[in-house]
Amino acid sequence: MKAYTYVKPGEAAFVDVEKPVVRKPTDAVVRMLKTTICGTDLHIIKGDVPVVESGRILGHEGIAIVEEVGEGVTNFKKGDKVLVSCVCACGKCYYCRKGIYAHCEDEGGWIFGHLIDGTHAEYLRVPHADNTLYHTPEGVSDEALVMLSDILPTGYEIGVIKGKVEPGCTVAIIGSGPVGLGALLTAQFYSPAKIIMVDLDDNRLETALSFGATHKVNSADTEKAIQEIFDLTDGRGVDVAIEAVGIPATFDFCQKIIAIDGTIANAGVHGVPVQFDLDRLWIRNINVTTGLVSTNTTPQLLKAMESHKIAPEKLVTHYFKLSEIEEAYKVFSKAADHHAIKVIIENDISPEA
Amino acid sequence: MKAYTYVKPGEAAFVDVEKPVVRKPTDAVVRMLKTTICGTDLHIIKGDVPVVESGRILGHEGIAIVEEVGEGVTNFKKGDKVLVSCVCACGKCYYCRKGIYAHCEDEGGWIFGHLIDGTHAEYLRVPHADNTLYHTPEGVSDEALVMLSDILPTGYEIGVIKGKVEPGCTVAIIGSGPVGLGALLTAQFYSPAKIIMVDLDDNRLETALSFGATHKVNSADTEKAIQEIFDLTDGRGVDVAIEAVGIPATFDFCQKIIAIDGTIANAGVHGVPVQFDLDRLWIRNINVTTGLVSTNTTPQLLKAMESHKIAPEKLVTHYFKLSEIEEAYKVFSKAADHHAIKVIIENDISPEA
Repeated sequence: MKAYTYVKPGEAAFVDVEKPVVRKPTDAVVRMLKTTICGTDLHIIKGDVPVVESGRILGHEGIAIVEEVGEGVTNFKKGDKVLVSCVCACGKCYYCRKGIYAHCEDEGGWIFGHLIDGTHAEYLRVPHADNTLYHTPEGVSDEALVMLSDILPTGYEIGVIKGKVEPGCTVAIIGSGPVGLGALLTAQFYSPAKIIMVDLDDNRLETALSFGATHKVNSADTEKAIQEIFDLTDGRGVDVAIEAVGIPATFDFCQKIIAIDGTIANAGVHGVPVQFDLDRLWIRNINVTTGLVSTNTTPQLLKAMESHKIAPEKLVTHYFKLSEIEEAYKVFSKAADHHAIKVIIENDISPEA
Repeated sequence: MKAYTYVKPGEAAFVDVEKPVVRKPTDAVVRMLKTTICGTDLHIIKGDVPVVESGRILGHEGIAIVEEVGEGVTNFKKGDKVLVSCVCACGKCYYCRKGIYAHCEDEGGWIFGHLIDGTHAEYLRVPHADNTLYHTPEGVSDEALVMLSDILPTGYEIGVIKGKVEPGCTVAIIGSGPVGLGALLTAQFYSPAKIIMVDLDDNRLETALSFGATHKVNSADTEKAIQEIFDLTDGRGVDVAIEAVGIPATFDFCQKIIAIDGTIANAGVHGVPVQFDLDRLWIRNINVTTGLVSTNTTPQLLKAMESHKIAPEKLVTHYFKLSEIEEAYKVFSKAADHHAIKVIIENDISPEA
């Protein structure tokens, strides 16, 4: 089959590989219908995730049709249309039993396109299919479903829920990329008083306003941006700051705008340590949270989508075929130039048998 | 009256000053019965808290007898024996109405011995007496009550509650000083599986064992200490790490021993920023909390003491008279040499009129 694979730092290739097979009783093999690219895939290609081996098929998002299941799989059967979660979960280890699927200890957690082959291919082997796949409801678009593999639950679980967004509170979201926008959409479940979107890109900020942000702040001039946020919050700072970038400057921005008793919810993937101003913050009753998504909110988000409480399909800006995946990567790697948020890549190579 | 005052960095003096008077309708003036010294008082004398003015009377803990109340005070009357909270609270500003008295915006928060005169004197002016003072129950020792001004609620609110200590969890407390020991005593309310006390001083660690710690770890050899803690926690690290020192090394220790999904509750007063290893921790679903005590748990702690669920008087190791306060400071400033935890200083200069 065809698959898009990591080769070495700076290089990926669309190549022919073996079609996956069921290896364990709890596996499924699925035929990909649609997938998308994540910023993490770009990081891997750059060489930022050295644990990724040459030849690894990239990607951890998508929807698919079940082709074959192992004898231990009971929730799914051949022909089922499924959502593939970015997090695999055995459902029975120490962390799974605590509901923290992100840290599943038995071929689980974020492993697709990382430690095992991913979704940028015609077919995918899914470990622990009963817990890693979800049935897709009627009436929800494919585009919306693909957003549910990773970015929507990440923005929701790691940004909104850990940040404790609540009615009447003030929220700043730093970074108007897919995860920041996922947080923006799901923050609105809880009716915050203000959602201030912060980014360097005016186009992305305009998009955020159209997605429900109440205010936008361009942070090119950091001091001015901080002052704008204090002006918007009675001089107190925000109750919730969602960090959705993953660099020291954006963490620093969060620790400068957080109100007394507020929470900085870090959703960004960081490559270096940050300076944490405990000399100033020890007294301010703040909270900082981190986390990898567990996708344990997926059933809830599916129901929210079914009842039209949220429309994540609006994150999709570009469409490609799997046979054009190299072009899709080119566009997504220069997302700002193309006003791209999320791309949909449809499997045109192996349509229904 | 006599009072112990900050003079300049490195210098304090026991001097004659004016007796305080009721200035506002919500004030009380109280005659101190017993007070104690906090590590913060030593920091102020060193010059670490430059906002403290020369001539400021030190101290923010103690019990007293009400001498006079302003016309707006209704909860207390002359002759009442009272606990003086380290935190003053107007009870009606933005933060007080949220229950965060630490950040009261109207002559509140931690101001005794800091921004207004403190408890190391014969008499004390108490702003917002109705909310800053507490009636003392029968059958609770003066020693126990004095521990309730600051260190016990600090250990409890900022360490145990923010750290989310719960039945069956594993706790490490870094720093076996008064606040760390306050956290140790109150953590036991929630029946954690293990409480590992960490310190450089073997005497303090022995004390911690006698106060209910299940394990002690001397952190002189950091790497060895970290390994010991992982060995005690099935290789996972602790669910709760309470930082009760306030230096970069102890924060770093906490971030190295915290389990996935764990909480670092920072109770230490920090003078410089710390390095926060988000590159390693972004994925580990951890929480970090900070805060100044609000003493909103004081009523609860008083009832716990009345029913003998906790005996904080065991923190008291030394006794002095107010006339000997200079000697008390000498001993407390070399606490380790003297095996001192908390000292009691009794007002012998102005006994009952």
